[in-house]
Amino acid sequence: MIYLDNAATSFPKPKSVYKSVMEAMTRYGANPGRGSHAMAIEGARVIYETRELIAELFNLEDPMNVIFTFNATDSLNLAIKGILKTGDHVITTEMEHNSVLRPIKELEKFGVENTIVKCMNDGSVNLTDLEGAIRDNTKLIVTTHASNLTGTIFPAEEIGKICKKHGLLYLLDASQSAGLLKIDFKKYNIDFLAAPGHKGLLGPQGTGILVINSSVELKQLKEGGTGSLSTSLEHPDFYPDKLEAGTHNLPGIAGLNSGVKYILDRGLESIYSHEKKLLDIFIKEIKKNPKIEIYGPESIDHRIGVLPINVKGLDSSDVAFILDTEYSIAVRPGLHCAPLAHKAIATDKIGAVRFGVGPFNKRKDIMTAVEALNEISNFR
Amino acid sequence: MIYLDNAATSFPKPKSVYKSVMEAMTRYGANPGRGSHAMAIEGARVIYETRELIAELFNLEDPMNVIFTFNATDSLNLAIKGILKTGDHVITTEMEHNSVLRPIKELEKFGVENTIVKCMNDGSVNLTDLEGAIRDNTKLIVTTHASNLTGTIFPAEEIGKICKKHGLLYLLDASQSAGLLKIDFKKYNIDFLAAPGHKGLLGPQGTGILVINSSVELKQLKEGGTGSLSTSLEHPDFYPDKLEAGTHNLPGIAGLNSGVKYILDRGLESIYSHEKKLLDIFIKEIKKNPKIEIYGPESIDHRIGVLPINVKGLDSSDVAFILDTEYSIAVRPGLHCAPLAHKAIATDKIGAVRFGVGPFNKRKDIMTAVEALNEISNFR
Repeated sequence: MIYLDNAATSFPKPKSVYKSVMEAMTRYGANPGRGSHAMAIEGARVIYETRELIAELFNLEDPMNVIFTFNATDSLNLAIKGILKTGDHVITTEMEHNSVLRPIKELEKFGVENTIVKCMNDGSVNLTDLEGAIRDNTKLIVTTHASNLTGTIFPAEEIGKICKKHGLLYLLDASQSAGLLKIDFKKYNIDFLAAPGHKGLLGPQGTGILVINSSVELKQLKEGGTGSLSTSLEHPDFYPDKLEAGTHNLPGIAGLNSGVKYILDRGLESIYSHEKKLLDIFIKEIKKNPKIEIYGPESIDHRIGVLPINVKGLDSSDVAFILDTEYSIAVRPGLHCAPLAHKAIATDKIGAVRFGVGPFNKRKDIMTAVEALNEISNFR
Repeated sequence: MIYLDNAATSFPKPKSVYKSVMEAMTRYGANPGRGSHAMAIEGARVIYETRELIAELFNLEDPMNVIFTFNATDSLNLAIKGILKTGDHVITTEMEHNSVLRPIKELEKFGVENTIVKCMNDGSVNLTDLEGAIRDNTKLIVTTHASNLTGTIFPAEEIGKICKKHGLLYLLDASQSAGLLKIDFKKYNIDFLAAPGHKGLLGPQGTGILVINSSVELKQLKEGGTGSLSTSLEHPDFYPDKLEAGTHNLPGIAGLNSGVKYILDRGLESIYSHEKKLLDIFIKEIKKNPKIEIYGPESIDHRIGVLPINVKGLDSSDVAFILDTEYSIAVRPGLHCAPLAHKAIATDKIGAVRFGVGPFNKRKDIMTAVEALNEISNFR
């Protein structure tokens, strides 16, 4: 199978990831922080080292502000609900995933106001519109760093400056960019960053991170055992324990450790330029076919390795089905949990076929996909 | 290393568990429910089959009422916070883990009242006390099925009858019993069951379950992408999607699938009687040593394979440290995230050394531990 669904989850992972997951399960598969024996200590060491690696990747001071979660949705809910209170106003954009939009819509029921800024039909946001949406009670801006539908890159550094200028918190949804685009906590004004462990960070599913760079204290969503302050019936109020109740996904974190090491070794720039090169070939080739419609920014510099398309006259699900069954090519059709983003690019009625390239795709994967799309568009 | 810390997490797992985790990562490591290609469909199939296996284990009608969570803490928070509202009263017991006590204490701040029923010094609860705590506004009783400290088995079927008689909901914390003790949803009046996937169910860490057997609708704690109703900004209101936002821990669930299959094949009774036999030998042997204090029920029939002890005159941490470093035996000292349980058995000042036997321990593991404890108590 040619896997071009990396925006949903990266596949394959570096071999070291599989090895680390297996080692965590078979060699030191104890419960870190819940025992003092050698196996539990080795688990705790791996978890701490993974915090350090992630801090290094994002140029963050304190590894204890790297919180391990279940997935990016978990991280986003923690941040959004941990920050916003009745009477607050939050600004976000049409390009967001349902993991941002749905918690914000839920908070409406509790008197948290929101503005969802309209976006351009290439998936970009106008910063004047974003800044213009700020009100007296605005507390937080949440934006994606790169759209999961169009791949459009948002100017996180510029948005951070707007937030700083107005004294607002900035939550960056780096679900599609972590492990691909540069994110520098010492330079960018980002207060909170949410990302899955299983996409660009190349770790296994069941892992997510919330990175905290703010003195604003997040309220936890869950209380429970932390292996710390066990005598107290009150949940601990220090990071990371405050936001990490219950047993960790140790095999998952061990795999994530190796995923981030791979990224640090190969270099963000190298991975990004690899994906960009493949996408460039892909776009240039399918642009030759007038029956294929391409969405997203014109310039390759404004997009990550995600390409949504439609074959004129065919439903996106049908195209994906044919790619799967006749060409063994894995992509994702439909709405991609981003309903307003589809409105922005005017595909809310028809959906789109999303190709997502990853660090292990090759030129021939792209050429096979191009050939398949040409055949599908010509013979149906 | 001789691993006797199975109450924290089971180790090792059946070999099929490791194999399934690896297969999920390397063969069909896509994002189930977020694509329609062959790999995503295989992932979705494995997840659904795992719901069916768990439903079979607990004799539950509808596999869609098996919710996959991050860990038991996640499940318990979902149930406790999903049920209780301002003005409600909840009853629980001193033997509970912090994953029950801390959410309940947190809800105090929002006007949810609670009664924590005192327990006996063998870790058991008096059912008359439990029933006596019921008030007009009582909505829920939460109890453990077996204490993580003393191993004391709670009469879940009897407690369920009390709940039914008074029209109360019953949430069972099966963290130490799932995969070991019989739990029958068709016979027992249990409304909600929470358990980790990584203890008795023999799956990997990063998995938990919440099993629902009630028409009372749980409110979700998180909203996000579910792969369903993607056009809607409202989170879906049907199970399991309602309580499962974001990407699943597919490798973890695939491992859990094999863990539960192992249990169904070997049989609960066989696993339980194996652990009971080992514990019986253990208790009989160390009872010969007057320097060792044993906690928990007198009768072996009232406990699961968990044994807390202290060596007179030695701190529990020191004993665990010596067992680890000199005998390569893994156990857990201290308070085990269950502060009130330690009060009940009068070890809140000193903690205890907890031995937890598992399905793969052998007689010789127990005899080595006995020998080590005898040496430690004699020469220090």
